[in-house]
Amino acid sequence: MVQAKIRLYVDHPLSEGQSIPLDRDQAHYLFGVMRLPVGAPVLLFNGRDSEYRADVAEAGKKGGVLTCVERTRPLQVPPDLWLLFAPIKKARTDFIVEKAAEMGAARILPVQTEFTNSDRIRQDRLQAHAVEAAEQCGGTYVPEVAELARLDRLLADWDAERQIMFCDEALAGAAAAPGMATGGKWAILIGPEGGFSEAERARLHALPFAHPVSLGPRILRADTAAVAAMTVWQQRFGDWA
Amino acid sequence: MVQAKIRLYVDHPLSEGQSIPLDRDQAHYLFGVMRLPVGAPVLLFNGRDSEYRADVAEAGKKGGVLTCVERTRPLQVPPDLWLLFAPIKKARTDFIVEKAAEMGAARILPVQTEFTNSDRIRQDRLQAHAVEAAEQCGGTYVPEVAELARLDRLLADWDAERQIMFCDEALAGAAAAPGMATGGKWAILIGPEGGFSEAERARLHALPFAHPVSLGPRILRADTAAVAAMTVWQQRFGDWA
Repeated sequence: MVQAKIRLYVDHPLSEGQSIPLDRDQAHYLFGVMRLPVGAPVLLFNGRDSEYRADVAEAGKKGGVLTCVERTRPLQVPPDLWLLFAPIKKARTDFIVEKAAEMGAARILPVQTEFTNSDRIRQDRLQAHAVEAAEQCGGTYVPEVAELARLDRLLADWDAERQIMFCDEALAGAAAAPGMATGGKWAILIGPEGGFSEAERARLHALPFAHPVSLGPRILRADTAAVAAMTVWQQRFGDWA
Repeated sequence: MVQAKIRLYVDHPLSEGQSIPLDRDQAHYLFGVMRLPVGAPVLLFNGRDSEYRADVAEAGKKGGVLTCVERTRPLQVPPDLWLLFAPIKKARTDFIVEKAAEMGAARILPVQTEFTNSDRIRQDRLQAHAVEAAEQCGGTYVPEVAELARLDRLLADWDAERQIMFCDEALAGAAAAPGMATGGKWAILIGPEGGFSEAERARLHALPFAHPVSLGPRILRADTAAVAAMTVWQQRFGDWA
């Protein structure tokens, strides 16, 4: 389900006639790996402006220049949905970030819970995964990956207007998402392997803006739960209408 | 989101008092890797009977014996949902099988479409992934992974009572799953990277038992689409009620 055409994220303003300088990595990818000649088209987006078709104006081993030719798609900002998740093993953490970008999360927040093993993340690497996912899925927006933060501190400073849908495996089999109000600002919270601690569950259940949901009778891995929870939310409140 | 207790799939009848011989791999895992002593409990399931607690009766380097002590959970057969998908890169194909088992597919069918690159799969390896996913997610059922088959031949012999929900990326943004009847036998069909061919799309749209659905305005990778589509189905017709 990947578009055939090359799409490239660039951290540069985009508008018709604009010249876009390429760095060494980008030039290597476009001219060394993909073998694009001068004149070949590429789709560009920067997460802030529309998507543009650009043509290769100069191609070199260490750099190059693209020229924006025409606007191809408007910027499509996803709904105001954050995804909070407890980092797990490297490959699955990468997957969660990729899936969050594909599913249309606006912001991705790795959180430390009581049962989270990980006490550091490579924030730059995860951000690069979000960029790559946006390139692949045809998105014009790139969600920001935040620094790792402690869940208890995030909740202490939480904006009460941002509702939280949290996935409580103790609810397995219960009705999905009872009593959630519609619209507005939201966050989905996915627990770590081993689930939330008793103290965390009690705290979450006591928060008036937090809503427990069930994701069926089987226990899902965190990366599966992330996609399933975002599907539930997007269908109900998001841009899948 | 993984249970702490060891769960093991065994291809052996299970009932109270039953002795279960272990093969070399199982003995290595339980006694070499997990260091279980005699008397330690393990949860066993075979995909046909209930789940049982068994205790280690004999532990050796090349084998061992477990004794079934008590029934811990009934067999939980998922709804009659098949997942058909076009195999992609190895790691993502593994993920799709794992996700299908976690999400409660009853049967997993790799299919060759016109734009599928892969012309063979390691069916035994994929089946082992389904077993491992069932061990991890607390499932008592293991979906069968079928041999690779051509989509056109499968459709030629299709049971018209089994409805098909197929994910058509050309519908991006359209209403999700209009006009699907409830209940009964179902299959979800996920297309390959590059989507279905025009001929395949035309054929699918003409089938009275096939229903196109949209999975939102972004293009999803096949493994993401599989989880999202199973979520849509399980919420609407499955065991997430």
